[in-house]
Amino acid sequence: MRFVILDIYLRWYELALRATNFEVYGSPRKDLFQNLILSGMGGSGIVCDMIYSVLYSSSEIPVTIVKDFQIPRWTSKNSLLCAISYSGNTLETLNTVSKALEVGAEVCIVTSGGKLLELARVRGLPHVVVDSGLIPRAAFPQLLIATLKLLSTYRINLCSDLKSLTNILRDVESVSKTSKELAEFLKNSLPVIISNTRFYPLAMRFKDEFNENSKMMAKVEVIPEWAHNDIVGWELPLGVVKSLVIWDDDLVIEFLIDYLRGRGVDLQVLKLLGDDLLSKMLYGSYIAGLTSVYLAELRGVRAEETKSIDMYKEFLKRRVNH
Amino acid sequence: MRFVILDIYLRWYELALRATNFEVYGSPRKDLFQNLILSGMGGSGIVCDMIYSVLYSSSEIPVTIVKDFQIPRWTSKNSLLCAISYSGNTLETLNTVSKALEVGAEVCIVTSGGKLLELARVRGLPHVVVDSGLIPRAAFPQLLIATLKLLSTYRINLCSDLKSLTNILRDVESVSKTSKELAEFLKNSLPVIISNTRFYPLAMRFKDEFNENSKMMAKVEVIPEWAHNDIVGWELPLGVVKSLVIWDDDLVIEFLIDYLRGRGVDLQVLKLLGDDLLSKMLYGSYIAGLTSVYLAELRGVRAEETKSIDMYKEFLKRRVNH
Repeated sequence: MRFVILDIYLRWYELALRATNFEVYGSPRKDLFQNLILSGMGGSGIVCDMIYSVLYSSSEIPVTIVKDFQIPRWTSKNSLLCAISYSGNTLETLNTVSKALEVGAEVCIVTSGGKLLELARVRGLPHVVVDSGLIPRAAFPQLLIATLKLLSTYRINLCSDLKSLTNILRDVESVSKTSKELAEFLKNSLPVIISNTRFYPLAMRFKDEFNENSKMMAKVEVIPEWAHNDIVGWELPLGVVKSLVIWDDDLVIEFLIDYLRGRGVDLQVLKLLGDDLLSKMLYGSYIAGLTSVYLAELRGVRAEETKSIDMYKEFLKRRVNH
Repeated sequence: MRFVILDIYLRWYELALRATNFEVYGSPRKDLFQNLILSGMGGSGIVCDMIYSVLYSSSEIPVTIVKDFQIPRWTSKNSLLCAISYSGNTLETLNTVSKALEVGAEVCIVTSGGKLLELARVRGLPHVVVDSGLIPRAAFPQLLIATLKLLSTYRINLCSDLKSLTNILRDVESVSKTSKELAEFLKNSLPVIISNTRFYPLAMRFKDEFNENSKMMAKVEVIPEWAHNDIVGWELPLGVVKSLVIWDDDLVIEFLIDYLRGRGVDLQVLKLLGDDLLSKMLYGSYIAGLTSVYLAELRGVRAEETKSIDMYKEFLKRRVNH
């Protein structure tokens, strides 16, 4: 059982390549909207974050991320809500879809099955079906690519060549080597992952993977906001803290690294391969995944098991009548 | 010097009350927009977060928060950008204002002086001037109330009675008592402040105050997202962690508290006085401020000093030609 999730990570290139051929079912009712809403929790939520980050510098309509049961008041018949849930049964996401349909928004869906797939079929909502039988967080590249495909049918184009994008996942050996070194570095620490705003989704992905696979607490900070408050906490840093800095060609990242080194903080700087923001974040996510599994091994915990999340989902099922 | 900032906190009611009489200078060029952008760093950024949280359930136009140098691509002549900076010299915020003016957006400003005030006067931008000579983070209630006033001139109404809102700050004695107990509880810990999505701005405010005044590291988590990844990190929690849960009448908060107690996590639940989201967050901010100053005393550090932030600002001045 130990290596089940590792096996999936090691197949990311193949899984991603398959995803580039996924079909988009159904047709948009229209393709002009006044705003876009991205709804998803956990790993699906990271897909939302990444798309937001790319659209921040390219979308002419406002984009909002929802990681909750409630949709914003500005959801209307002029909105497009894109819902992502691997299982198709995430109650938060299901709720946002119901509410969006109620106000007449266009809704499209990425899922592997569950109630969301049922709903998409019954209501004729545009959707992409990813491979079932994977562990949700390890299905990440399929969720990302499926969402890119789905959005492009609405003329929201984030990537002109999906096959090229997947190439960044080919060199498993080098990713694995980097990840093993990183796991060794972080193993007995409280990792603080720091990035600039545009790489925030990747920093969060690292944290989530450390939480779920490695059963570790972790913390994320974002520059330049970090330099307005969190920085002061590093004047008397806790010994257990180690820092992982996600490199970008950014003045404030330079300041950050100098500052932390000056404080004697144990840190590593991760430089990302890739031609653009999206491929760099996909590459970084691969390192995050493998590092978190190696950390699980070093810590003697089972990467696959997330008992606490199961407890939460059981609780919700008992208490919420959806 | 030790008590300078405490003196300001102890005058919050008076400062807030003064703010209700601040004048809005200049007139909106128009009052219908397709989207609202809130720009501010640090304590000013928390004002943005709080306004976002209230507007999430009431605004018919999308709202975006910017804590960075760059504005989103969807900023246009149909946008309203509200910039908040106590000093008026925050380079990130200044940059967003320049960019917004370049694309023809309506810009309005809350500040105590600096380049932003100069710009507001020269360009005739609607603005509110808060009291100068305060420490920025301690000027929080004035920044909040000034922003509420400014937005209401654009018919964006978040609070019908500002004077009533300030009443929540009157009972200093009881706030002080709660804060002393909380400081005692948190003094040797890594505080993890957990709230639901709508109270996220308050959770962040606690963290920022602990960072700046108490020179402590701290971490924020938000439910329900917490239950999809971070929760697993609590299966093997670090001994140094203590949790502050911000109470709200919310199923998932109940689950959270039960879960943490079941894990033996040392936690306190903060129940907030107030009639609505805004007054509760203002009340909570008062507790955050006083707690952070008492923590500074317990830790033997000077609450006023934030040398690292000064280093950052010096660095920016040297390296950025604005």
